[in-house]
Amino acid sequence: MKPIKVGLLGIGTVGAGTFNVLQRNQEDIRRRAGRGIEITMVAARNLERAAQLTGGQCRVVDDPFLVVDSPEVDIVVELIGGYELPRELVLRAIANNKHVVTANKALLALHGNEIFAAAQEKGVMVAFEAAVAGGVPIIKALREGLTANRIESVAGIINGTTNFILSEMRDKGLDFATVLKQAQELGYAEADPTFDIEGVDAAHKLTIMSAIAFGIPVQFDKAHVEGISQLQADDIRYAEELGYRIKLLGITRRADTGIELRVHPTLIPAKRLIANVEGAMNAVLVEADAVGSTLYYGKGAGSEPTASSVIADLVDVTRLATVDPYCRVPHLAFQPNQMSDVAILPMSEITTSYYLRVYVNDQLGVMADLTRILADAGISIDAVLQKGTRGGARTDIIMITHQTREKNVDAAIERIEALVSVVGKVIRIRLETLS
Amino acid sequence: MKPIKVGLLGIGTVGAGTFNVLQRNQEDIRRRAGRGIEITMVAARNLERAAQLTGGQCRVVDDPFLVVDSPEVDIVVELIGGYELPRELVLRAIANNKHVVTANKALLALHGNEIFAAAQEKGVMVAFEAAVAGGVPIIKALREGLTANRIESVAGIINGTTNFILSEMRDKGLDFATVLKQAQELGYAEADPTFDIEGVDAAHKLTIMSAIAFGIPVQFDKAHVEGISQLQADDIRYAEELGYRIKLLGITRRADTGIELRVHPTLIPAKRLIANVEGAMNAVLVEADAVGSTLYYGKGAGSEPTASSVIADLVDVTRLATVDPYCRVPHLAFQPNQMSDVAILPMSEITTSYYLRVYVNDQLGVMADLTRILADAGISIDAVLQKGTRGGARTDIIMITHQTREKNVDAAIERIEALVSVVGKVIRIRLETLS
Repeated sequence: MKPIKVGLLGIGTVGAGTFNVLQRNQEDIRRRAGRGIEITMVAARNLERAAQLTGGQCRVVDDPFLVVDSPEVDIVVELIGGYELPRELVLRAIANNKHVVTANKALLALHGNEIFAAAQEKGVMVAFEAAVAGGVPIIKALREGLTANRIESVAGIINGTTNFILSEMRDKGLDFATVLKQAQELGYAEADPTFDIEGVDAAHKLTIMSAIAFGIPVQFDKAHVEGISQLQADDIRYAEELGYRIKLLGITRRADTGIELRVHPTLIPAKRLIANVEGAMNAVLVEADAVGSTLYYGKGAGSEPTASSVIADLVDVTRLATVDPYCRVPHLAFQPNQMSDVAILPMSEITTSYYLRVYVNDQLGVMADLTRILADAGISIDAVLQKGTRGGARTDIIMITHQTREKNVDAAIERIEALVSVVGKVIRIRLETLS
Repeated sequence: MKPIKVGLLGIGTVGAGTFNVLQRNQEDIRRRAGRGIEITMVAARNLERAAQLTGGQCRVVDDPFLVVDSPEVDIVVELIGGYELPRELVLRAIANNKHVVTANKALLALHGNEIFAAAQEKGVMVAFEAAVAGGVPIIKALREGLTANRIESVAGIINGTTNFILSEMRDKGLDFATVLKQAQELGYAEADPTFDIEGVDAAHKLTIMSAIAFGIPVQFDKAHVEGISQLQADDIRYAEELGYRIKLLGITRRADTGIELRVHPTLIPAKRLIANVEGAMNAVLVEADAVGSTLYYGKGAGSEPTASSVIADLVDVTRLATVDPYCRVPHLAFQPNQMSDVAILPMSEITTSYYLRVYVNDQLGVMADLTRILADAGISIDAVLQKGTRGGARTDIIMITHQTREKNVDAAIERIEALVSVVGKVIRIRLETLS
């Protein structure tokens, strides 16, 4: 059988990795796929660099529309990043009856519903293993490996930059700004790190996993997105003393009244496997009714790890390119006419545990005030830690709560901050036992 | 579309789990698969129990051949266990143009080549996610998720019974026999635990993963199989002091001259994620050239975790039942005409590091003798630990070596045991850094 023909849109880090791995392992890949996979065309802004990278083995153009319109391309691999141009290119590729592979989580989190509907109508595939957790085959696990299950929750460390920063803050007792600067110097964080450190990238990935886990449309606009830039070294240390690690988790969970969809710093018991995922690594923990807990771990970014997922998708598409679309795995795991309209819950309606740090004037009766306010709000306390004064008569009181509704905590915090003995804002970090 | 019809051979632990999960989650499964999956027929030794379990919803027979011959069955799920009867039933199901799903690692490790060849000829599928690591979708990850990669090694904790025993031995400082007895009482070990504790079960699973990882036939007869029944509490403690945990690992690795295929107790650095997989859990660590390290973790046994994988296979088969066989994933990951004949290495040719414990009369010069013997054999030492005497003038000397060939260690051990100052046999446990 003739090789299937692939057009690359973009040949930056992931594109170059895809080209190199496809070339280096072409023999093994052909032995698996039963058919060659050949990059015939590349669109790049820097034509010279692209020509050098590809060694003259494929046509290099600067107009990506030439690739999506080319009869010499069966599968378009979109690796440009961003939203609008990729959206236009992907939709045009689909309109041209081409299959699409993309690593672009932002694109899918925002325009996935439109893109999958178009692909469905045309009977082509849009594959996106590389969009979540880099080289870890978590999309395949959720979409195919766990089809027997009612999935209860997905919780993931799905942004390597922030996990690297948190690991360094904990290991070295440094503050966020210092570690971010180091991470930028080491290439672990971008010059403009906003999307990573503010949780946006993690929320894109979580949105995609949520859709697949629960059979709902992608709904990035409903996600709660909170990063690590406000996290203080003190809280990492206090958490440690209480037996927890702080990770930036993306969490999506089936609750009684809807779906939780939230990214925020989270305390996790230090003994959990996922609490020990360090540096730039990713891990996703899935809870499901039949299988229980499963965890998937690996490199969440980088040239060849991400290329590994791009190429796995290329092999899948190569195999199934000619079959009846009904025989393929649906884009979002559930058949498109079988999606659920269960709502994403507002943050006030989620249920979790909390780490609360209150900075107080060390006065008689303040603990009684705090515990009374929590009791009034129906919040029970699991642990309390009172730390020595930081100069003067002030002290940190840390309370770990049992599970409660977020709105109860909002109300309690408002009352706590109104106490005269309380200084400044209450620090609130959510806590998941993941048991 | 009408439901696809499934016949169960056996309705013990996994069979009952499969029936229950299929029933409980039938709506979610149908929404994913696009078609119902219905158990129409069950073969069981205990007809009464089977009728009770299935609540009269399907035909129950005592002759499994009635199931594999029935026109009312599209997919046969083999859950009988053992070798000969399942082999006969599976081959007959294939001959009858039925697809097969099996959880039977022993069957595939021994008769896989014959079974897959028969299935290939008939154009039917044989799916076996449940045969390795229970509910963890490791077969899918290796076979589909990592198709871009040249896989370098697979190392797994793939037997829950032995991992439970090792966890208990370490936690409580107990010896093997005591913990085995407790495990039997708790139902974590069978009345005849031989297959588990002697590494046979792990070797069955490893044999299957090795075939998929490297594109070679299943070759259980070439596997090195070593269990934990000889493991002493002292060595678990010494390993701990040196920063290691002992796990029963199944390891298969691509070496320069062939493939390593071995199950044995193994020291692993305690800080590795896989070293912290405790109790009856399973985990598989895969090293591959593009993606680097990935790890897959979850329940390796039990009714519903294993059923989760059986049903995932049923969904896959349901989707692809009618497509051209060439469009499906090959049984052993590589196209059947593209298998490699690279040899499995004899144990003397493998390369790893070693923990050696020598029990000596505490005489002047014994350390010099030991280090000279290792140096003569070309083995360099990474660490030495000398422990206080255990009554009298005797002492344990523990040496950790750098990587070397097993035959060098065999030769050195022979010379060490011949020293007059050495008492009894040298304890040798292999060590993997898994870095």
